Amino acid sequence: MIRRSEWKKACDWAWNFVKESGFIVQNKEINSIEIADLGLNEFNITGLHILSLFSTEWVGAKLLILKPNQFFPEHKHPPLEKAKFPGKTEVIRGQWGEFYLVVPGSITCNPKSNPPLHRKRYIDIWHEIVIRPGDQYIISPNTWHWFQAGPEGAIVWSISSKLTDAEDKFKDPQVKRKTIIVDDYSD
Amino acid sequence: MIRRSEWKKACDWAWNFVKESGFIVQNKEINSIEIADLGLNEFNITGLHILSLFSTEWVGAKLLILKPNQFFPEHKHPPLEKAKFPGKTEVIRGQWGEFYLVVPGSITCNPKSNPPLHRKRYIDIWHEIVIRPGDQYIISPNTWHWFQAGPEGAIVWSISSKLTDAEDKFKDPQVKRKTIIVDDYSD
Repeated sequence: MIRRSEWKKACDWAWNFVKESGFIVQNKEINSIEIADLGLNEFNITGLHILSLFSTEWVGAKLLILKPNQFFPEHKHPPLEKAKFPGKTEVIRGQWGEFYLVVPGSITCNPKSNPPLHRKRYIDIWHEIVIRPGDQYIISPNTWHWFQAGPEGAIVWSISSKLTDAEDKFKDPQVKRKTIIVDDYSD
Repeated sequence: MIRRSEWKKACDWAWNFVKESGFIVQNKEINSIEIADLGLNEFNITGLHILSLFSTEWVGAKLLILKPNQFFPEHKHPPLEKAKFPGKTEVIRGQWGEFYLVVPGSITCNPKSNPPLHRKRYIDIWHEIVIRPGDQYIISPNTWHWFQAGPEGAIVWSISSKLTDAEDKFKDPQVKRKTIIVDDYSD
């Protein structure tokens, strides 16, 4: 869970960061920011700001916005077997800063990413792709991946087939995908 | 058909326009520009520059780049019945300039768009949506639409489910979707 004051601060930070990056947004889109704290209570270390641009039955787009070195744990977008859907295809395109995307493959010897020590036990893949502005990478459905921002933070687009975020599978059993906001006075 | 020198000039113009708009591109992406002259031999009036960003089995993204007042005729993205695909869902998002998107609906009394007189007989819809930077509009599958740039030209994103451009249906029987480039000396 995240305190309302921390949630508000995170939204404001992400909004200003997006505007400064040169990405064109409408003022009302500040209300489309989601804070994913993953229930871990360490948002500045592990978590993600998401600006949802649109979502339809067939296609969706969002911006993934990360603080310096912010980490997002290993997960995948599984198939929806009833719907004969192979899982979300996700295309990452760099907008600002450095973004380290890690996928299955040969281990990168000198990676730029450095996930939090206490989260490493739930990481099984170590093939790093460095995404800079204008770089793209296609993540196939049902493929494990994790990511981390570089030292100045990062903004990337995530353009995908149908959004199925509630179905995401995480390696780390502590992760809860749904954000719970608590009021500051509820100690 | 379009002469190679005109084709080259159109690519260069589109590339410079995209870079000046603040959209972040990689140098190699100049090779992903397509010139759609529609076989009409009036590219500055009717046609489109397309920068393809990516295309997968499930999702694709491009920039639509138009000269001042450039017009693109009425068309739709039909279903692929064999594949049980309802047709391309296309989301337009404004990046630069004014873009007039016209879709089925009540007739707009004082539209900003003004299609070429000699192309009007193949237009049946007159409900205009003005797309400015940051504006979005979702075009449902199998829905007729046409568009035109404002007086300073326009750049919009087209983010969609699977690209099926070769299947597009046009109202105007003169339109040929495939661009044929001819060498300048082949008079």
